[in-house]
Amino acid sequence: MEDQSTNNRRRFIRNASLGTLAAISIPEIVSAALAAAPIAKRVNIEKDDIILFQGDSITDAGRGNRDARLANNTGALGNGYAFMAASQLLLKNPDKNLQIYNKGVSGNKVYQLADRWDADTLAIKPTVLSIHIGVNDYWHTLNGSYKGTIDNYIADYKKLLDRTKAALPNVKLIICEPFGVLDVRAVTKDWYPTFDLFKKAAKDIAAEYNAPFVPYQAAFDKAITLAPPSYWTGDGVHPSIAGAALMAETWLKAVKG
Amino acid sequence: MEDQSTNNRRRFIRNASLGTLAAISIPEIVSAALAAAPIAKRVNIEKDDIILFQGDSITDAGRGNRDARLANNTGALGNGYAFMAASQLLLKNPDKNLQIYNKGVSGNKVYQLADRWDADTLAIKPTVLSIHIGVNDYWHTLNGSYKGTIDNYIADYKKLLDRTKAALPNVKLIICEPFGVLDVRAVTKDWYPTFDLFKKAAKDIAAEYNAPFVPYQAAFDKAITLAPPSYWTGDGVHPSIAGAALMAETWLKAVKG
Repeated sequence: MEDQSTNNRRRFIRNASLGTLAAISIPEIVSAALAAAPIAKRVNIEKDDIILFQGDSITDAGRGNRDARLANNTGALGNGYAFMAASQLLLKNPDKNLQIYNKGVSGNKVYQLADRWDADTLAIKPTVLSIHIGVNDYWHTLNGSYKGTIDNYIADYKKLLDRTKAALPNVKLIICEPFGVLDVRAVTKDWYPTFDLFKKAAKDIAAEYNAPFVPYQAAFDKAITLAPPSYWTGDGVHPSIAGAALMAETWLKAVKG
Repeated sequence: MEDQSTNNRRRFIRNASLGTLAAISIPEIVSAALAAAPIAKRVNIEKDDIILFQGDSITDAGRGNRDARLANNTGALGNGYAFMAASQLLLKNPDKNLQIYNKGVSGNKVYQLADRWDADTLAIKPTVLSIHIGVNDYWHTLNGSYKGTIDNYIADYKKLLDRTKAALPNVKLIICEPFGVLDVRAVTKDWYPTFDLFKKAAKDIAAEYNAPFVPYQAAFDKAITLAPPSYWTGDGVHPSIAGAALMAETWLKAVKG
């Protein structure tokens, strides 16, 4: 450890003298967010891991080849945080034979994950499963198109995870926080405090299932102190490129590797 | 500097104790490549910079909205190294109002950049212009569809840069190395030593125009010691996701910010 630390310090000093500080440190923004919302545990990325990103449109992010089962495929991973995180995992772990998938589907609520879970999750047999779900479980109630409550969200989410653990006892779960950026188009003061219940529920579920919890809300809350909310998200729900990069960097702090 | 260094060391130690070393250091692979091929100067990323990526299919990487002039647009930036580098620049510089474009076009040789330079480069008025061109200037000669020589490449490239500097005297140039990964489909021993001339020419041009040179060949040469060549590129010319991430990280070392 001391040697690594010393080497790192030497490299830092050498790089800093060349003016490349920004490129070697993780973004301060992520450090600051994690200081406010530390990730209690991390998932080890191991040889032959099959990593699956599940969720809604934020995970989907325009992916192609939707029905195929293509690992490490550019189009199939979309253009969002899952693709960005995958690209870093593949770069940093060339010795691990990782297989990375994205099966997020726009508009999904937790019960819709359940509807397609056999084909889109269990059949892939992930060893690492990242789930980001919840904003639609609240948002879609606002126009009356969905009648679910916070109790439905919690019950459906736990049922989904119990089913997952039964089928894949050794799966390593990562639970991601649903988030909203206030005062950007879709997200108004009316969302609160009800929407907060969904974020808290996801966090409680992460703890109950012994999974790392990725604190996206803290990341965006920090981000909007550095640039206007519209820099990070076009509608309060879907991230911009900068917002997706923020999510990817935050997500990567939930893993080792 | 000393304070930053001390803080960085503290953060390193804290993070290392949590087992997240990989996530905070730049990939060792990039460090090793740069040790073999150091980047002599770096371009400052400044407030209101307009950053344009130009090149061939490797830059293009499936971008959409091809004829529109859309900055920081997910589809318009493609799925390759330009998108990945842009995402990091936007995340790390939220205070700089960066406008980032990709106008790479599949199949382009340097004379084809010239054909569309007014509309696709000069009209955008970039303050930072990254050019990655040259593999097709060699590759397309192999099937007889193109008759250009190394002398054409050099003359056309310099003419393009002279024209660029005349129109945009303050533009900050970044010249990227054409590369090939030997023994992956398209790239055979027959490419050498002729193809080496194109890489050397790009490097010489970077020096002549006082621009940083991004050493992609050194990056891939290091990468293939860690995973098979096919992990980094499907055909020897076009990068995989891991290869594109490697390029983005290497490219980012040519800038400060």
